[in-house]
Amino acid sequence: MLKAGIIGATGYTGLALISTLIYHPDITISLITSNTYKGKKISDIFPLLKGRFEETLTPTDDNHAGKCDVYFLCLPHGTSMEAAKTLYDGKALIIDLSADFRFEDVTTYESVYIPHTARELIPHAVFGLPEIYRDKIKGAKLVGNPGCYPTSAILGLYPLLKSGLLTGDIFVDSKSGVSGAGREAKLGSLFCEVSEGFRPYGVGVHRHEPEIQKEVSKLSNLKIMFVPHLLPINRGILTTMYSKLQEPLNTKDVLALYRKTYHGEPFVRIMDEGIYPDTRFVRFSNYIDIGLKSFDDGRIVIISAIDNLVKGASGQAIQNMNIALGFAEIAALTALPQYP
Amino acid sequence: MLKAGIIGATGYTGLALISTLIYHPDITISLITSNTYKGKKISDIFPLLKGRFEETLTPTDDNHAGKCDVYFLCLPHGTSMEAAKTLYDGKALIIDLSADFRFEDVTTYESVYIPHTARELIPHAVFGLPEIYRDKIKGAKLVGNPGCYPTSAILGLYPLLKSGLLTGDIFVDSKSGVSGAGREAKLGSLFCEVSEGFRPYGVGVHRHEPEIQKEVSKLSNLKIMFVPHLLPINRGILTTMYSKLQEPLNTKDVLALYRKTYHGEPFVRIMDEGIYPDTRFVRFSNYIDIGLKSFDDGRIVIISAIDNLVKGASGQAIQNMNIALGFAEIAALTALPQYP
Amino acid sequence: MLKAGIIGATGYTGLALISTLIYHPDITISLITSNTYKGKKISDIFPLLKGRFEETLTPTDDNHAGKCDVYFLCLPHGTSMEAAKTLYDGKALIIDLSADFRFEDVTTYESVYIPHTARELIPHAVFGLPEIYRDKIKGAKLVGNPGCYPTSAILGLYPLLKSGLLTGDIFVDSKSGVSGAGREAKLGSLFCEVSEGFRPYGVGVHRHEPEIQKEVSKLSNLKIMFVPHLLPINRGILTTMYSKLQEPLNTKDVLALYRKTYHGEPFVRIMDEGIYPDTRFVRFSNYIDIGLKSFDDGRIVIISAIDNLVKGASGQAIQNMNIALGFAEIAALTALPQYP
Amino acid sequence: MLKAGIIGATGYTGLALISTLIYHPDITISLITSNTYKGKKISDIFPLLKGRFEETLTPTDDNHAGKCDVYFLCLPHGTSMEAAKTLYDGKALIIDLSADFRFEDVTTYESVYIPHTARELIPHAVFGLPEIYRDKIKGAKLVGNPGCYPTSAILGLYPLLKSGLLTGDIFVDSKSGVSGAGREAKLGSLFCEVSEGFRPYGVGVHRHEPEIQKEVSKLSNLKIMFVPHLLPINRGILTTMYSKLQEPLNTKDVLALYRKTYHGEPFVRIMDEGIYPDTRFVRFSNYIDIGLKSFDDGRIVIISAIDNLVKGASGQAIQNMNIALGFAEIAALTALPQYP
Repeated sequence: MLKAGIIGATGYTGLALISTLIYHPDITISLITSNTYKGKKISDIFPLLKGRFEETLTPTDDNHAGKCDVYFLCLPHGTSMEAAKTLYDGKALIIDLSADFRFEDVTTYESVYIPHTARELIPHAVFGLPEIYRDKIKGAKLVGNPGCYPTSAILGLYPLLKSGLLTGDIFVDSKSGVSGAGREAKLGSLFCEVSEGFRPYGVGVHRHEPEIQKEVSKLSNLKIMFVPHLLPINRGILTTMYSKLQEPLNTKDVLALYRKTYHGEPFVRIMDEGIYPDTRFVRFSNYIDIGLKSFDDGRIVIISAIDNLVKGASGQAIQNMNIALGFAEIAALTALPQYP
Repeated sequence: MLKAGIIGATGYTGLALISTLIYHPDITISLITSNTYKGKKISDIFPLLKGRFEETLTPTDDNHAGKCDVYFLCLPHGTSMEAAKTLYDGKALIIDLSADFRFEDVTTYESVYIPHTARELIPHAVFGLPEIYRDKIKGAKLVGNPGCYPTSAILGLYPLLKSGLLTGDIFVDSKSGVSGAGREAKLGSLFCEVSEGFRPYGVGVHRHEPEIQKEVSKLSNLKIMFVPHLLPINRGILTTMYSKLQEPLNTKDVLALYRKTYHGEPFVRIMDEGIYPDTRFVRFSNYIDIGLKSFDDGRIVIISAIDNLVKGASGQAIQNMNIALGFAEIAALTALPQYP
Repeated sequence: MLKAGIIGATGYTGLALISTLIYHPDITISLITSNTYKGKKISDIFPLLKGRFEETLTPTDDNHAGKCDVYFLCLPHGTSMEAAKTLYDGKALIIDLSADFRFEDVTTYESVYIPHTARELIPHAVFGLPEIYRDKIKGAKLVGNPGCYPTSAILGLYPLLKSGLLTGDIFVDSKSGVSGAGREAKLGSLFCEVSEGFRPYGVGVHRHEPEIQKEVSKLSNLKIMFVPHLLPINRGILTTMYSKLQEPLNTKDVLALYRKTYHGEPFVRIMDEGIYPDTRFVRFSNYIDIGLKSFDDGRIVIISAIDNLVKGASGQAIQNMNIALGFAEIAALTALPQYP
Repeated sequence: MLKAGIIGATGYTGLALISTLIYHPDITISLITSNTYKGKKISDIFPLLKGRFEETLTPTDDNHAGKCDVYFLCLPHGTSMEAAKTLYDGKALIIDLSADFRFEDVTTYESVYIPHTARELIPHAVFGLPEIYRDKIKGAKLVGNPGCYPTSAILGLYPLLKSGLLTGDIFVDSKSGVSGAGREAKLGSLFCEVSEGFRPYGVGVHRHEPEIQKEVSKLSNLKIMFVPHLLPINRGILTTMYSKLQEPLNTKDVLALYRKTYHGEPFVRIMDEGIYPDTRFVRFSNYIDIGLKSFDDGRIVIISAIDNLVKGASGQAIQNMNIALGFAEIAALTALPQYP
């Protein structure tokens, strides 16, 4: 059994990690941290864990280097890079759920976030999107776990981008549940500010746009426009992408391309023609469901759905760990979606 | 006081009409009909009306010609055209909330709906979008009240289309609350099939696409793609539209164009730069809020929000009545949005 | 036109006051205050007011004495009594929406809240439940507006208590929407902490229990137990009350007693036998709906529903103002409930 | 591997059974039936099963006797007893999720349901509440799986009833999510009829009242009053019970009694003093959480929470199967609660 540490365990991604790792055959959770709740039992913070996992929280600010075989950093950007500096030793695996190690190009990172204080680690970091970078993730010691929106958008576009079939602009219309905003007490996340409403936010300025763009730019010279919206649901992202094929292809053929590209992928499900994703059908699972429709004149719409806390965060983090450490890739990740 | 009849009064649009017309200074509701609930008091169907409006429902299938000065048809398409045939006499005003009289071109109508059995009335019908067709609505005797999605999309695009500033494809990504599906007991409208979920539907085949397209085609040769999604809220439509300007314009200038185009419109609110619509902020009101952002390379995103039961249905119907009958256009429509 | 001031205007009760007073024929809102948002336009805080009410916020901490004819205090308890001390002059009407002037007996107040620093004003204060204290409210200059839960419980029990028909314990099981917790950024009010959940809170220790008990004790020597629960809805309180009649009475007779007690009350609606309240059917209105069922052995269940922000707060405050200042009691309060 | 059949597999309990039995080490699902969807793949009805369980639905009306080792009947009452007659052979285990075999006394059943057409099977049936009837369930061939509300109420009251500590009336105030109403297209279950609302129903006439009463009457001569309410959530029941102790006991002592009574129970969690259940903390799990508070004068409030589709239906059915067939009682039932 390898030892896992969850640094910043009292947010929604921390809880999702705990709730999943509990079932992992090769991992034991030996460290959970929180500055706010240090000294408390995690089951007092999340009573659903009562009787199942009742460990005590250690201060995040303590030095935890050398204690674990794998660390999951569930910290705000900025804080995360500092923790990585402390923990990185080339032996333990670090999976960072913040944005700090998602960008190979520090300039792009700094243009949308803050000055990077752990630049020396960037060359060691791998962008943890297994369907594209599995080979690099194997054996990596530092994984920048992708953002939730970028996961839904990049995997939705990848087969067409890789094949060079798209032309013109790509419009990425995303809708996310509220857990994407984290577990901080913020006015905009209050029940009464969200329920029975729907709104866009960060139009043209959201920090996930450059994260998506950098991946798109590796495969094409196309530009994306990204508009996220806030859904009055707890979990789930649905992304609707609009673009154009250089040459019209019928829907069946494009679906075949997607099936071929993602052949053997344990967590990618390509819908049949006429069927489209629904966040309900991936909820609590590590799946990404993708459906699409193309038109006679080359226009195409691609729709993907994930659970933002699973494939969009903690599930993908565990998938990355499984790959990096040589475990079965689906270990602990076989939970079915749950509905209603 | 003129007499109003609501044909099919026990759905959500019927209730919204009653709840609004009650406040109209020049209108009395003298007829409400329902085949399913005939003989019952409307306040037994909608207990919220108790003590305020307790009239008895007459069978929809009775002949109601000559009874009222204005009829609101809240019937399914097909049924509505039959009712219009019975009621139309060139004197009473008929406002049809179904799709039956929205299309000047019967061929388009029939390609997406059913054979039209009241073709002789089509030349008398006006498409009831006041911001575009106010002059035609004045004195009209038959108004085809626009669909909810089309209202949000057409008004969102109109200033740019009218000015001939757009080029390329227009992608219309719409999200609607569940009341848009009506008050029928359908599996897909069940609480457990909607709550905590989000999904597209009618991708590329929704009947509101040709309704939007016909208006776009009057002003340009551009093509729209329309993808509606189902929001887990009761009321509200938010439509995000992606397109491209022939020449880049900054956001301020485009907003100025919108303000100029809609100058004096009592129900159109153009947001300030950096502010975007939220369905919460139009809920229960007849407003359409519009915000937008343009980019250096000409790409533009326009966002509009309405209450689908008010500006998207019953409120707009009353606005049309006010115009057609020469009442103050805002009569009975001054309700503020309500939140939380 | 009399001048109204809303002290603390950027919470949900402040917004509800503005949204209602706008329609009042005898009142103009001349003052709105906020320390947090001072200098901003209220329509920037609540964009739904755009184009309708765009006044600028003055600091709450300024001295506003002498500026208005009526002040609504939407402040936390403690802060409110201080504001009242500054504003009270025996001429202007002060309606306090906090708990500070609800208790005739300062000892009870202090046992559940904090030391009272405006004791000299307590003798001037009237408990603003019009259905019971209308005569005292007329001409009053200081009104302690009742709590939302107490309004639903006291009016639900009043006819039976007044008639001396109850015996034994009274169990008051209340369920409230989230807006009852105000517009502060608190962990427990986050969407993800409320949505798809349901829980009791303040079991046996909620501060509304003594507020209900003091009114019950004026009419009987019975004890209540009060358990509030948090509903995943924006607005609405439903209270289910369990008790026992000294002598069995059938449901019809008890309903008749309720109708008689509340005869002429503009905002109390007694349901027919077999019909029970639903928060949807009072939402956005000043109504309290009451239904009940009695059993052969004397047990009885009474159910009431209100909108916590209207009859439970701002609507009742305006009703109190109307009575105190001699306006029509229903002025500005004729809004129908809204659903869906 | 034993073979399981799910008769009526396309409702929410059917889906919950499939989603759970998939993980059972000793069970394979060899039969799923539906009259409405016969011939279709279950993954076409529930796309979340895509890639995981894609079996074809057989008509429910076919004769399925002798095909399986255990049958789960997810049928309406009445239909269920007919299916039981066909399938019962004293060898296969039948677990009926309807009400048809919950009542030992057929007169009570018939007074609230319909005439019973399989009376000869009633003596073979066991009421499947493991915490009370585990010994009888072992080896049983016909189990009447308890109702969701009764599970929450009976287990909440059992320790006090068994100890003979209660006196007076018991008021049972229950609140259930919408999935309790099943997956039929009914007006009252529509999103717009439930969302943003809350209402009681079946006041004093709900058929779960006699089911709770019969169990209470086995242990005392007390009477319950049961009032269920409809919560705008998918899953979860919270039941608040009010009663009185013959002699006052402090909360700690009552909690100790509960812990002792349920010692060793794998799915009962007794909260610490001051902590109360929340439906979020049992959601998707087979737990029942119980909290309580007693008062100096003997009054007591007990609160329990379950997931109505798991401990209130399919999870408990599998627990019963595990006991009846001698499997580990927690087999396939170790899923943690999931939130947010």
